[in-house]
Amino acid sequence: MWLRIGCDLLFEIEVPTPFILMLRPKSGLNQWVARDEFKIKPNIPVLEFTDDYGNLCQRLIAPPGYFSIQTNADVKTAEFVDIAPGAHFVDIQNLPDNILSYLLPSRYCESDRFNELAMEITYNQLPGYDQVTAIETWLRNTISYIPGSSDYPISSIEVNYRQSGVCRDLAHLGIALCRALSIPARMAVGYLYKLEPMDMHAWFEAYVGGRWYTFDATQIGPKGGYVTVGYGHDAADVALFNQFGPSVYPISQTVTVEKLIDENNYY
Amino acid sequence: MWLRIGCDLLFEIEVPTPFILMLRPKSGLNQWVARDEFKIKPNIPVLEFTDDYGNLCQRLIAPPGYFSIQTNADVKTAEFVDIAPGAHFVDIQNLPDNILSYLLPSRYCESDRFNELAMEITYNQLPGYDQVTAIETWLRNTISYIPGSSDYPISSIEVNYRQSGVCRDLAHLGIALCRALSIPARMAVGYLYKLEPMDMHAWFEAYVGGRWYTFDATQIGPKGGYVTVGYGHDAADVALFNQFGPSVYPISQTVTVEKLIDENNYY
Amino acid sequence: MWLRIGCDLLFEIEVPTPFILMLRPKSGLNQWVARDEFKIKPNIPVLEFTDDYGNLCQRLIAPPGYFSIQTNADVKTAEFVDIAPGAHFVDIQNLPDNILSYLLPSRYCESDRFNELAMEITYNQLPGYDQVTAIETWLRNTISYIPGSSDYPISSIEVNYRQSGVCRDLAHLGIALCRALSIPARMAVGYLYKLEPMDMHAWFEAYVGGRWYTFDATQIGPKGGYVTVGYGHDAADVALFNQFGPSVYPISQTVTVEKLIDENNYY
Amino acid sequence: MWLRIGCDLLFEIEVPTPFILMLRPKSGLNQWVARDEFKIKPNIPVLEFTDDYGNLCQRLIAPPGYFSIQTNADVKTAEFVDIAPGAHFVDIQNLPDNILSYLLPSRYCESDRFNELAMEITYNQLPGYDQVTAIETWLRNTISYIPGSSDYPISSIEVNYRQSGVCRDLAHLGIALCRALSIPARMAVGYLYKLEPMDMHAWFEAYVGGRWYTFDATQIGPKGGYVTVGYGHDAADVALFNQFGPSVYPISQTVTVEKLIDENNYY
Repeated sequence: MWLRIGCDLLFEIEVPTPFILMLRPKSGLNQWVARDEFKIKPNIPVLEFTDDYGNLCQRLIAPPGYFSIQTNADVKTAEFVDIAPGAHFVDIQNLPDNILSYLLPSRYCESDRFNELAMEITYNQLPGYDQVTAIETWLRNTISYIPGSSDYPISSIEVNYRQSGVCRDLAHLGIALCRALSIPARMAVGYLYKLEPMDMHAWFEAYVGGRWYTFDATQIGPKGGYVTVGYGHDAADVALFNQFGPSVYPISQTVTVEKLIDENNYY
Repeated sequence: MWLRIGCDLLFEIEVPTPFILMLRPKSGLNQWVARDEFKIKPNIPVLEFTDDYGNLCQRLIAPPGYFSIQTNADVKTAEFVDIAPGAHFVDIQNLPDNILSYLLPSRYCESDRFNELAMEITYNQLPGYDQVTAIETWLRNTISYIPGSSDYPISSIEVNYRQSGVCRDLAHLGIALCRALSIPARMAVGYLYKLEPMDMHAWFEAYVGGRWYTFDATQIGPKGGYVTVGYGHDAADVALFNQFGPSVYPISQTVTVEKLIDENNYY
Repeated sequence: MWLRIGCDLLFEIEVPTPFILMLRPKSGLNQWVARDEFKIKPNIPVLEFTDDYGNLCQRLIAPPGYFSIQTNADVKTAEFVDIAPGAHFVDIQNLPDNILSYLLPSRYCESDRFNELAMEITYNQLPGYDQVTAIETWLRNTISYIPGSSDYPISSIEVNYRQSGVCRDLAHLGIALCRALSIPARMAVGYLYKLEPMDMHAWFEAYVGGRWYTFDATQIGPKGGYVTVGYGHDAADVALFNQFGPSVYPISQTVTVEKLIDENNYY
Repeated sequence: MWLRIGCDLLFEIEVPTPFILMLRPKSGLNQWVARDEFKIKPNIPVLEFTDDYGNLCQRLIAPPGYFSIQTNADVKTAEFVDIAPGAHFVDIQNLPDNILSYLLPSRYCESDRFNELAMEITYNQLPGYDQVTAIETWLRNTISYIPGSSDYPISSIEVNYRQSGVCRDLAHLGIALCRALSIPARMAVGYLYKLEPMDMHAWFEAYVGGRWYTFDATQIGPKGGYVTVGYGHDAADVALFNQFGPSVYPISQTVTVEKLIDENNYY
């Protein structure tokens, strides 16, 4: 399916403020970006770079006054994410070198503290994909998904304690539980078609059966329409914007995801 | 200055043909891509990757029949390239590790065979930028630039023997001469505003005074309006398309570079 | 100065156990490894790779029974680490791309929770090196350094609460405080000449004045004799060994650091 | 098998001379370096880095006078290289991204000029491994292998014209012929047990059946005992030493490869 996605941010800046942005989707295994647009007003210099995870990032210094970022893109993505019940657990010794770091605990995913809970949740499951499905189901049934309920990241221990959270929080706990079972897991942020209420979204991926699979405890049933703008160990790596100096918050943020119906008119 | 650049290619394919394309400009130190579009018809699967030089490449298998690639982008680039007469030669021991390979001979730049000529051309010049300027001037005065005179790459030895060539050929000889003096040099391909006749273009960069500078023996005087789509050791690394199996050639190729006059209407 | 460093580990393994080791020093900007030896008994297959931080790592599956790792190396390192009082804070926009991730919070360094404390500790200091010195001094005076007092990593919040810790703990808190000031900071693990009691060691580095500098709150005065085996965001990235499956602990661990007196006899 | 390999070089330097060395074997998929030693006299500063191909390189400035490099290492390598008659040709679209550049022509392997010869040599062969075997056999039967017959690299066109060459020359022609068939091929340099006469050696690898396989037209029958110190597109990438400024040549070079008979005494 073809999606036209967009995110507009508006800030009011008081002192010159360095920003690092992660809002630009990149073509990859799971998506093809056929068109994209990234407008910044005022029209200040921007430096783009690719971070250690392969994400496209932009660096700039926002000047005092109104500062807006308008991004949109046309992206081809899967109608339904791949699923693979029964896909096997990959033995540590067979994991690719560059996957190993996704076994380690990270800022918001203290996987070293979740061994028991992970064992309990996945009791009797076949090692691999089915364990992750059990984790996803447990999250869906146990942790209340309350969009907009939190502004800043909290760690998986806190999420588990609160038993509720935003999409990012459910993803963090899912990642921590996977890693506790020696299943590599990472965070993805981006867009989801028909998300309610519409906003930027976060979910997680687990590496089983020799590749990454998508999991999302905030949604029911195998869905599709995901567009990723960033991958990382957890939310610390994939902030849509990192800003330095006195805190600024968007005074408006508009996210849109629309399906290109007659895609052949476009592509 | 803001440029709207575009390259459309049309092929007629007989058997399914693997392609690797390098036509998509990327934001970097010298340019900011604010909008880009990359359309392929028919709408087949494409995989995008970043090669060892940081270039964006696309892989696909073109099916039999007409096959078209339409690309265009809005890019902010310098009105005039930077110049730095007198910029010093960088001692080998001070070159960054990742620059060193640009000292080595490559397929079309047999720098190991040009020591004497390079010494002769740059006699009495200050080591560094001024040597490269002398090389550029010598190329401009010695090697006739005849656009369209050749279809496939020839190496610097052959260029020097023929004393004429296309933009790529002059760049190859310039690179070989620089490397013969232990000045790192690389090839760039892309677009040039007001190029006559309009086409894709090639030029070279030399690393002096601690950074890369642009040189182009096919043009007079310090110009600007360059948009790069690929960097490499020479033309072998930066083909606009590599195609495997029975040879196919574009049945049409249209290149456009236009200035966005009222840029504030756009950006 | 030339050091001969060594670390021998002995395990008793019950079930085949995948290990990832990080015990092999690598030559770099601050050290030159002229000789090194890495013996594993029994003589099983080992795969070596370089991780995302440039550390040399080894992967293997230890078979049941005694399993030993014996490493030693001759390394040239600085007699005194470089110091640079007054070295300036590097503005975010001037940090190299690959340094930026060292500004982010990580598993054991919750820098997002230390803004106030960091401001307080560095009150009136010149931004940059002097702030880090103030942090180092504060750690030395405030957090009791008790070698051997803890077996597994705790995070900077917990360290600050306990007001005591091992070398790793002081480093974690130091890193968190630096990052809270937007100073990139990273963890280093390895050897230190004349460390008392002798053991593997951990310290931290801060990026100010355009390069990394060494800080170590567990020691008095500018010292030298550091040999690094791993760099990372925090202890999660630089475990000397990561082991998967049922926990195993070394039944013996011997660390030695000796000075090569007549170095010209050796090198 | 375990080999103790060594290479000693002695230079007499007249003016301070920058060197880049590639003499230090690295552990990898095919070899495990358990011990290594790299002595430089006089004991000047050395910087080690890993190049774009993953090779360990050292940078230094040799001072006037005698300058010696003594290297040796204990390496576990295969008794016989793997062979895989019938292993399939990998379709371009299935090659990993980082393998693609090994399809391109390079300085000494003008693969773009060998299509016809490659087709002729491999006529009737199954695409893939068997084609490379046919190329290897053709080289062995056609190009006289004359150790020591040449000092500097010549390109595959010249090798084919001369019909004789050193190990490097046969490898270059083999690589060019493979790439002409769209089989990725790369050069390897290093040591070979029982090479006659003993010296540093060069051979080539071809990517078929999903991995690299070793080929060596200078030797008869499947052998083993290879230790690699460098991989690259061709000899331009894997010089044992690159030296800048007035040419210097080793006044002595000693290469040794000995088998560790009672390896358990060592490892």
